[in-house]
Amino acid sequence: MQFADRLITAIRRVGNSVLVGIDPRPEDLPEGFLDRFPPDRAGVARALEEFGRDVVDVVAPMVPAVKFQAAFYEAYGPEGVAALHATAHHAKEQGLIVLIDGKRNDIGSTAEAYARAYLGKVPVGGRYEASWHADALTVNPYLGSDGIAPFVKVAARENKGLFVLVRTSNPSAGDFQDLVADGRPIYRHVAERLAQWAAPQRGESGYSLVGAVVGATYPQQLAELRAALPGVLFLVPGYGTQGGSAQDVAGAFEADGLGAIINSSRGLTFAYQRPAYRQKFGDDWRGAIAQAVRDMIEDLAENTPAGRLRVDNPA
Amino acid sequence: MQFADRLITAIRRVGNSVLVGIDPRPEDLPEGFLDRFPPDRAGVARALEEFGRDVVDVVAPMVPAVKFQAAFYEAYGPEGVAALHATAHHAKEQGLIVLIDGKRNDIGSTAEAYARAYLGKVPVGGRYEASWHADALTVNPYLGSDGIAPFVKVAARENKGLFVLVRTSNPSAGDFQDLVADGRPIYRHVAERLAQWAAPQRGESGYSLVGAVVGATYPQQLAELRAALPGVLFLVPGYGTQGGSAQDVAGAFEADGLGAIINSSRGLTFAYQRPAYRQKFGDDWRGAIAQAVRDMIEDLAENTPAGRLRVDNPA
Repeated sequence: MQFADRLITAIRRVGNSVLVGIDPRPEDLPEGFLDRFPPDRAGVARALEEFGRDVVDVVAPMVPAVKFQAAFYEAYGPEGVAALHATAHHAKEQGLIVLIDGKRNDIGSTAEAYARAYLGKVPVGGRYEASWHADALTVNPYLGSDGIAPFVKVAARENKGLFVLVRTSNPSAGDFQDLVADGRPIYRHVAERLAQWAAPQRGESGYSLVGAVVGATYPQQLAELRAALPGVLFLVPGYGTQGGSAQDVAGAFEADGLGAIINSSRGLTFAYQRPAYRQKFGDDWRGAIAQAVRDMIEDLAENTPAGRLRVDNPA
Repeated sequence: MQFADRLITAIRRVGNSVLVGIDPRPEDLPEGFLDRFPPDRAGVARALEEFGRDVVDVVAPMVPAVKFQAAFYEAYGPEGVAALHATAHHAKEQGLIVLIDGKRNDIGSTAEAYARAYLGKVPVGGRYEASWHADALTVNPYLGSDGIAPFVKVAARENKGLFVLVRTSNPSAGDFQDLVADGRPIYRHVAERLAQWAAPQRGESGYSLVGAVVGATYPQQLAELRAALPGVLFLVPGYGTQGGSAQDVAGAFEADGLGAIINSSRGLTFAYQRPAYRQKFGDDWRGAIAQAVRDMIEDLAENTPAGRLRVDNPA
C-alpha cells in the first residue's frame, strides 16, 4: 500500500494523529536508568536502545507512528547508530509506522544512496536488501529538485514516504525561508515545488507520499500552507515543549481531521520530568509517558479537527 | 591549533589543496574486490572499509585532507556506519585532516547533538568522549542562524571546522539558491550570514573555522563569492566527474594560492575505471589512484593560483 494510505489507515485505526518523537538524551533518561549499563559509549548506546524500546512498547497501542531523531543516536557513534537501527526495527515489529528524522540532503547518486539506505534496498551479494526499513525520512530542500527526485523515486518504488522541510519551527527559521522573491517568501517557493513533486504520487486516500514539514510555531503560515498544499501530509513539529498549542496546530488539519501528524518529543518521552506528571506518577515513568500521550490525544481531539478521528474503541 | 590554521599548515606541507573524496560504491570497487568478503551486509561494509583504508594509504602522503561521503556508508546500515568510523579513524592516524560530508542540519539541542557527535564530545559515564573524531562537517543552512550556531560553538571549543552549503554544484541548485530577494540571490544572503558567523572565528592564518561549500560548476559565482568572503575557506565540489575544470575552480583561490580545497571523488578513487588509467595501470588500481591524484595536483598547479603552493620536496 502507498505510504500515505498506510499512514492514514494507521491514523484511523487508533483515532489520532500523534507522532511520538524519540529523541533520547542520556541526561534526560529516568533516574538510575543509565546506571544499569557499563559506563562506556557502548553502554550508553545500549541504554538509549533499551529506553527507546520501552517507549515504543508504551506508545505502540496508542498512536500511529513514531519519529526517531537520528542526531541523538549518531552522537554515540556506530554503537549509537546500531541502537537506532534496533529500536526502529522493534517499532516496526510493534506495528508502528517509523519515521527517521535525519533531514538528509544531497544530489544525484549520493541522494540516491541516502534514499536507498533509509527507504529502499542496497545491493548485497547479487540481491537487494533493506538496511534501515524506515517508512519515511525527513529531507532538506536547499539543493533543489534534483536533490529531491532520488528520494521520490525510491519512495514510490518501495511504498515509502518523505517529508520535505518547508517552514521549520525554530526562531531563526525566517533567516532564509522568509526572504521574499517574486512577491512571496522562499518557503512558499519550496511549497510550490513540493506540490509538483507530490502531485504524481497520490494514493487512494488522495494524499501523496511526498509530505511537508511545517512548524507549529507559525500558525498563520501553517494555515496558509494547508490551503496551498491539498493532498500533502504535514509533519508538524513544535507542539508542546517548543511552545505550540493545539490551537496553533489546528490549521494543519483538513476539515475531516486528516492531513497532518503532530509531533511531540521531549514533552512525551520525558514527561516524568514535568512536575504535574512527577507528582502523579513518581518513579513510574512509563505511566507518565502513557498519560502524556493520552493528554495530547485529548488536547488535539478537543481543540482541532482531529477530534473527528476519534474511534469508539481506542486501544 | 584552530581548524583553518591546521588545514592550511597541512596544505603548505604537501604543497597542494586537493581534497580526496571517498564515496565508496560497492559496484565501483576494483574487479574481484567484493569477492573477498562474505556476501552479506556486514561483508559489503567490511569491503567498503578495506577499500577506504587502501585509498587512505595511497593518498595520505600526497594530499592534506580526505572527505568521506556519509551516504554511501549509511546505505549499509549500522555495519556501514561502523566502516565509516573505522576508516575515518585510520585516515586521522595517517595524518590526514578528515571531513565528513553529512550535510547535517537541525535546530537547538538537536543541532548541538550533531555537532557534538561529529566534532565534539558526548557525556559518557561522568566524562566526555569523542564519538567520531572528524575535523570538519558539512552543514546545510536552510534552518537559519540558530541551526548553525551550535556547530560553530562546538567547533570553536574543539578546534574543529564546518563548511556551510552556499552554492551547490548540481543542475537544479538554482531552484531556490538563485531566487532573488532584495536584489540578490538567496545564496548571496546565505553568504552574508556566513560572513557574520565566520568573522569571530578566524585563526592566525586569517581564515575562519567556518567555511563555505561552493560548487565548481558555476565559475562566475565562485569568483564573485571568493571576493565577497575573504577569510572563508571554500570547499569546492564538482571538479572532474561533475564537469568542472581547473580553470573553472581557479576563482576559488586567493592570489597566494590559499583559500580553497578542491574536491574530487569518483574521478580519483575510481580512476582505474577510466580508459587512460586502465590502459596504463591495468589491475594496479592503487597505482591508477595515485596517478590520478598526481594529475589533479599538477592540473591545479598549472591552471590556478594553487601553483604558488608547490613545495620542493613533495612526499
